Amino acid sequence: NDAEKLASSLNSVINLRNDLQDAEIEVVFHQSAIKALLKNGNFVNTINDLISHRITVVGCRNSLNSQRLTEDMLLQGVKVVQAGVGEIVRKQAEGWIYLKL
Amino acid sequence: NDAEKLASSLNSVINLRNDLQDAEIEVVFHQSAIKALLKNGNFVNTINDLISHRITVVGCRNSLNSQRLTEDMLLQGVKVVQAGVGEIVRKQAEGWIYLKL
Amino acid sequence: NDAEKLASSLNSVINLRNDLQDAEIEVVFHQSAIKALLKNGNFVNTINDLISHRITVVGCRNSLNSQRLTEDMLLQGVKVVQAGVGEIVRKQAEGWIYLKL
Repeated sequence: NDAEKLASSLNSVINLRNDLQDAEIEVVFHQSAIKALLKNGNFVNTINDLISHRITVVGCRNSLNSQRLTEDMLLQGVKVVQAGVGEIVRKQAEGWIYLKL
Repeated sequence: NDAEKLASSLNSVINLRNDLQDAEIEVVFHQSAIKALLKNGNFVNTINDLISHRITVVGCRNSLNSQRLTEDMLLQGVKVVQAGVGEIVRKQAEGWIYLKL
Repeated sequence: NDAEKLASSLNSVINLRNDLQDAEIEVVFHQSAIKALLKNGNFVNTINDLISHRITVVGCRNSLNSQRLTEDMLLQGVKVVQAGVGEIVRKQAEGWIYLKL
């Protein structure tokens, strides 16, 4: 199901950090995955683990709005952008490498 | 389910258009998503909305064939290519940025 | 379901080979998709078909470990890397084009 898929994807991010220890890594959460970033969600420990592994965690404001969630419901340390899709395109335009999990 | 996921992805495309108003945007539909492009499908208004937002909508002929569908079942304005995967690779080779929804 | 999605994705790889006959193609299997590479799995013929179409088939050791599988359970001809995500990032850094199925 979706929660298992999400857990597996977050685990892949930790694997990426272990494999590329000096890389700058940013993870963009949008659509239904935005729920992983909620203070009262099921991934609090995992998200805090990403942040403590020097991974930038980004949430999409459009996804919050469409699910009637607000920024103050998100975990401390999460960066918010207006459009997750725009963030992904802009980062690539700056030379970042893209990976979809 | 699949229909919800597809609706959410199409909404992300509109968000991308709003965020990058001058960008050339093309969306390739293949595998089971090709059904979103059918005249008698559930996404007629959304697909027409994409087209009216200057987004190129592309369907994959291989996906049509494998699901025993034909090009004349597709909405007006949809562009058809032989292989959606080939289209995605070629566009990137031309310098386009890729985003998987 | 997952098996149908996987079958459809593997079919897309064959379509890509047919469309780009001279391209070097590598497919990375990670997370739950690693099971497609098992000797006693449901995709033996399809994976052998990929290999016979000059497609490099790669499995992720992290994914094997997290599912308590071992390398000797994988089909002959499969290449194993420590992290599938790292492989995808490195290949792109070398200039390869990325496509998520």
